[in-house]
Amino acid sequence: MRKTNILVIGGSAAGATAALTARRHYPEKEVTLMRQEAVVPIPCGIPYIFGTIGSPAKNVMPDAPLEKEGVKIAVAKVESLDIARQVVRTATGEFGYERLILATGSLPARIPVPGSGKDGVFPIFKDVVRLEELQQRLQSATHVVVIGGGFIGIEFADEIQKMGGKTVTVLEIAPHCLSLAYDEEFCIEMENALRARGVQIRTQARVEEILGNGQVEAVRLSDGAQIPAEVVVLGVGAAPNVELAKAAGIKLGPTGAIAVDRAMETSDPHVFACGDCAEKVSFFKGRPTPLRLASIATLEARTAGANAFGIRREHEGIIGVWATAVGNLAMGTAGLTETAARQDGYDVVAVAVEGPNRHPGTMPGSVMTKLKLIFERRTGELLGGQVRGNGEVGEIINLVSACIQKRMTAEDIALFQLGTHPALTASPVVYPLVNAAELAIAKMAQF
Amino acid sequence: MRKTNILVIGGSAAGATAALTARRHYPEKEVTLMRQEAVVPIPCGIPYIFGTIGSPAKNVMPDAPLEKEGVKIAVAKVESLDIARQVVRTATGEFGYERLILATGSLPARIPVPGSGKDGVFPIFKDVVRLEELQQRLQSATHVVVIGGGFIGIEFADEIQKMGGKTVTVLEIAPHCLSLAYDEEFCIEMENALRARGVQIRTQARVEEILGNGQVEAVRLSDGAQIPAEVVVLGVGAAPNVELAKAAGIKLGPTGAIAVDRAMETSDPHVFACGDCAEKVSFFKGRPTPLRLASIATLEARTAGANAFGIRREHEGIIGVWATAVGNLAMGTAGLTETAARQDGYDVVAVAVEGPNRHPGTMPGSVMTKLKLIFERRTGELLGGQVRGNGEVGEIINLVSACIQKRMTAEDIALFQLGTHPALTASPVVYPLVNAAELAIAKMAQF
Repeated sequence: MRKTNILVIGGSAAGATAALTARRHYPEKEVTLMRQEAVVPIPCGIPYIFGTIGSPAKNVMPDAPLEKEGVKIAVAKVESLDIARQVVRTATGEFGYERLILATGSLPARIPVPGSGKDGVFPIFKDVVRLEELQQRLQSATHVVVIGGGFIGIEFADEIQKMGGKTVTVLEIAPHCLSLAYDEEFCIEMENALRARGVQIRTQARVEEILGNGQVEAVRLSDGAQIPAEVVVLGVGAAPNVELAKAAGIKLGPTGAIAVDRAMETSDPHVFACGDCAEKVSFFKGRPTPLRLASIATLEARTAGANAFGIRREHEGIIGVWATAVGNLAMGTAGLTETAARQDGYDVVAVAVEGPNRHPGTMPGSVMTKLKLIFERRTGELLGGQVRGNGEVGEIINLVSACIQKRMTAEDIALFQLGTHPALTASPVVYPLVNAAELAIAKMAQF
Repeated sequence: MRKTNILVIGGSAAGATAALTARRHYPEKEVTLMRQEAVVPIPCGIPYIFGTIGSPAKNVMPDAPLEKEGVKIAVAKVESLDIARQVVRTATGEFGYERLILATGSLPARIPVPGSGKDGVFPIFKDVVRLEELQQRLQSATHVVVIGGGFIGIEFADEIQKMGGKTVTVLEIAPHCLSLAYDEEFCIEMENALRARGVQIRTQARVEEILGNGQVEAVRLSDGAQIPAEVVVLGVGAAPNVELAKAAGIKLGPTGAIAVDRAMETSDPHVFACGDCAEKVSFFKGRPTPLRLASIATLEARTAGANAFGIRREHEGIIGVWATAVGNLAMGTAGLTETAARQDGYDVVAVAVEGPNRHPGTMPGSVMTKLKLIFERRTGELLGGQVRGNGEVGEIINLVSACIQKRMTAEDIALFQLGTHPALTASPVVYPLVNAAELAIAKMAQF
């Protein structure tokens, strides 16, 4: 029987990161990454296949970083797992491990309405073959419906729109797209941007049935409207892929994912889990959260990989940080929105600032950037932030995330030394992060 | 006699920020900003006037943010200062204050060589009239020499080169341009980029004399070379403008700037100072430092403004963070370089990573980004970072700066949750900041 020191199951962001981390922390150990796909799509790149990248084959995770660190790659589907004997079973036999890291990811959620299994309805699998099939079908489609106005949904819609010659409609059940991650004023901006690019958006749209004679023909809403569609893309979230773990007797948690502690250890001391398949606890108030993001998966993977042979890391819970881009409009969010913070019972001070992202504003490429920060009133700690602008938004939100994670206060942020440059950033006098913190301090002092 | 609660002298980055901060912290107080210029150039924008912005008039600090916060603006030259009577004297009479914030800035340094006063030699004054004169002279010049290869020097050189029809030569006395702020490998990249854009660079070039019959004609180096020039730009640093303070009996510090404590209070309890005119102490080892940057000036101004009527803030010393851009090449630096850290006696672990700033690398706009981090070996604390890439470099280096300022360790950074997006950032699996921290941890564990 083949045997390895550390076996990672799953080849996406969590699996790859866990394997890399394990090799760096335990250079004397053999690390094997086992995955069922010969090539793995870059998960975040999937929506961009259709209009920007061109084909699924151009959106694959390179094996070079894994190979460079000496990670062994085994392409095989794990059929079952025996945690007592510390082996996994594949079509070609058993494979032993000393430590196992489960990074089995998630499966796209479906919607419980009649017709959701019809030909032409595409849940988003992280699988090159299925994505190629979707791309093929999109070529000839003239009406496309995207169910779900989260970031996956809007990115798909915009990219499919870019293919040309199609009416693309996003259906969102909530009053606004992206409303779990952004306050209303940001959601509206993104909706307006999508509409300006030709995407149809229907909010508060409850899907009742997917119509068609075998093949999908239309989507019927609860208000009776029928929206024609030859292709329906489901962007309604994902459920943890826990079959293997569950069958092996590993405990699941309150949201149905694999239960883990702060060190990403499961109920079996030789088994860790990370990424979409693992339970998550919020950084705020410590409750279970169903949030699934690459930033979370890779944090968990860096934790699991480092802990394989001795606990070296614990993480403090999930902040939730990500960015999205549609054309020249980019938006980023980290932590709690103002709405979510108030719903959670926090007493908050929220401040939004807006100004050019270059100085002077006459510099080429200058656009207006808007930043909103949400502070806890009593401690002054940063709870969340949202930013809207262009290319540098992805890094601005990471700065916000770092501040949240280190529990920085408005006063900490007001005293930051932040570099500025005419061609790269806003002015030092009104640098948005610092400016918003200063305004929040002034606002807090009024109470 | 006119009187105000808080009088700020100086209208550039430090003065404007101090006035804004004072108004926010003391909304019941009148804040007056007194400056000698009707309009104030944006200091960081000055080099970009020549090739990018087009004219000094398009690079002025807007008064709107000041007016919006209720800051009174007085255009007047302060002739003297009486700290016992708490008044300043101008051509139109005396002006009283309860608290005074000196933000008198710096004056461009000259070089002690014969001929440096000739017509055609331009120190860089932050003054619209003088900049217009320089722009005028550059129009007809065919040979331009820039003395000094710091960021001001290289930005001027590149912008003047963009005007077309000129031979532009940078003279740097050190072995490399930018060598106070970047390690050699980064300096070389910038030099190569400048050369590829047609700028001549001579390093280890010591200027002995500026030649010409009244009007400048050439620059003579210690190796005998003569470089023709109708215009010579001096980018050799700046000296604190302390005349007013000195004449009034306010104490100066070890570098000749106005002595201040951590709260930016001077030797007179009613007088604060901030920006280029004030003494600075390094965040690292606490020694006096001559570094002058907008990020420092505005930090000091936010400190001084908040402390005017009661000490509310102290800052921990100067980190030094800034970015620069030449064409599509942008570079940022924060804290200590590896060279400087070793010279200061730190035992350091330095790690550099390089990878595409988009994922997959096939996304449009993808370029290779390089990030170097320098950690103190014993504590794992981040001492410095340098980054080379494109547009988002300005915000990446701010994230690095925040980590330095909060004394974060490699382990803190390895556990960051950082958002990633195909169109905006590197991959979550090898996000540079986290990846470099992980590599540093592995390296530190070897000892």
